[in-house]
Formats: sequence, structure tokens, C-alpha cells
Amino acid sequence: MDLHDSARLATPADAEAIAELLDAFNREYDEPSPGPTVLALRLNQLLTGPGTFAIVVGAPISSMGLVTIRTNVWLDGGIALLDEMYTVPAERGRGLGSAVLTAAVAEATRRGAGEFEIEVDEPDVDAHRFYARHGFPVRDPATGDRAFVLRTELTSS
Amino acid sequence: MDLHDSARLATPADAEAIAELLDAFNREYDEPSPGPTVLALRLNQLLTGPGTFAIVVGAPISSMGLVTIRTNVWLDGGIALLDEMYTVPAERGRGLGSAVLTAAVAEATRRGAGEFEIEVDEPDVDAHRFYARHGFPVRDPATGDRAFVLRTELTSS
Repeated sequence: MDLHDSARLATPADAEAIAELLDAFNREYDEPSPGPTVLALRLNQLLTGPGTFAIVVGAPISSMGLVTIRTNVWLDGGIALLDEMYTVPAERGRGLGSAVLTAAVAEATRRGAGEFEIEVDEPDVDAHRFYARHGFPVRDPATGDRAFVLRTELTSS
Repeated sequence: MDLHDSARLATPADAEAIAELLDAFNREYDEPSPGPTVLALRLNQLLTGPGTFAIVVGAPISSMGLVTIRTNVWLDGGIALLDEMYTVPAERGRGLGSAVLTAAVAEATRRGAGEFEIEVDEPDVDAHRFYARHGFPVRDPATGDRAFVLRTELTSS
């Protein structure tokens, strides 16, 4: 099997299967999840619009990436951000994540996005290596600098 | 003058003035800019839609912040990102940036965003201090970890 060929753009019909994977992902890392039903509803909406796409591999889906394209004042086609990447434990180490990321960058390019961003925690060195291999080094090749993302949760009063 | 009170939500009518500031910002930092005319057209469009807002201070505007809210599968109200922050050189050190950031976080909260993100380069230590004072430390207070943003430019063939 050529893994690159097997990665495909998801449709809203894949929302339920992707929701199951995202829910499993958060359970694996002990993060809260609203549950697969809520996620499937949101994904169905998001995948219908122009701002979100997903790349999936396998039937049933065993690896997925979710990408948001946001508008930006400097770039007509906006900026793509890899929101999620997940491969089911039994299928890891076979290059499925590589196929997903490669296809995600290609799809963002096809949609006219001017940049592709990935957020990664400092201790997650395996992810750093994986992303560097795919053209996303931690240090900007031109400046040698790293860039941080700062975040805070918002709670409406 | 109460600086907090003077920060206001921009309207599409402010697009030209904000475009002039963004263009000046990029010229100050030797970054390319498509020029104020193109920026004003884009801003006029973006500020008309739901995904972008700007906070401005002064008449004429001397300080501004530009925020994009992107959709997200985990958060119904999406994630806000501070795209730009700029104060004209003559007005720096008077707390205008604080007023803009405080109002930007309040407006993102009002719009229902679940998180607020800021990207900052590692060498920009003044910015780190400024953002930390406003509730955005470089290290996550819960985990002690930093998070990186990796990015690559996309060029369509």
C-alpha cells in the first residue's frame, strides 16, 4: 500500500468516525471531552464550512488530522493550523501520521493558505522530531529563534 | 483620562486608519507589507464578518490590537488569537497597549471564545514581561511547560 495515496480528504459523512477518534485521543491523555455525540455534531457543521478540513487514513479510519484555516490581514488565503493529529495505538509506527500531515499541508496549499502552523508542548520531544522531519523545525531556519504560544482559558461571568 | 475607558471596538469605518498603523508596524520591523490600500480593503472585509475584531485607542488611533476568532472542535465559541498589537512610537509607555489587550480579552470573552492565544518570539523578552503581567505567562501555570508554535510558509506551485 502506498500510504500517501491512502490519505483522503474527509467529508461530513466521516464526522462520527472522526469524533470517536478525537474522544479516544482525549481519553488516552486524560483530557476532558464533551463526548463523541457532541463532537460529531460540531464536526459535521465544521466540515461543511470552508474553515475546517480533515485528512483521514484507513477504513475504518485509523489516523486523522484536523486543520483550521483562519483569516489573516497579511495573507489573502489565511493561515492553516493543525488542530489535532491522532493515530489509534495499534496502527502507530507505520507512517500513517506522516501520510496525514503530508496530505494536510498539500490540502492547505491547494486552498490557498499562506502559512501552516503547528502548536506543540516543549516536553513532547517525539512530536518535535516528527514535525522537524516534515519541514517544521522548532527553530526558524532563517533566524534561529523559537516562538512560543501563550494561552489562557476564558470564562464568561 | 481613564485608559481602559478609552479603548473601543473598531468598526469597518476604522479600516483605513488601522491599515496605516499595520503598514507602519511592518515598516518599523522591516517586514514586507502589501501597503495600506490592500490592507484597508482586507480589514474592511474582515471587520464586517464575525471572525475578526479590532480594539483601538485614540483619535487619531495611536494604539491597536487585531484579534481573530477561529472555530475549534472542542470549544463551541472557538479560540481567539491576538494577531497584531501596535502602538505608535510617540505614544509608547503610557499604558495604551495594556488598555488594548485588556479590552481585547474582554471582547473575546463577550463573544464566547473559550481560549485566548498570543504568539511571541523567544528573544522578545519585553513582550514576554508585558504579556505575563496581563495573565499570559510563557509557562503554563498548571504544568510548568512552555508551548512552541512551529510554522512554515506555503507556496502554491
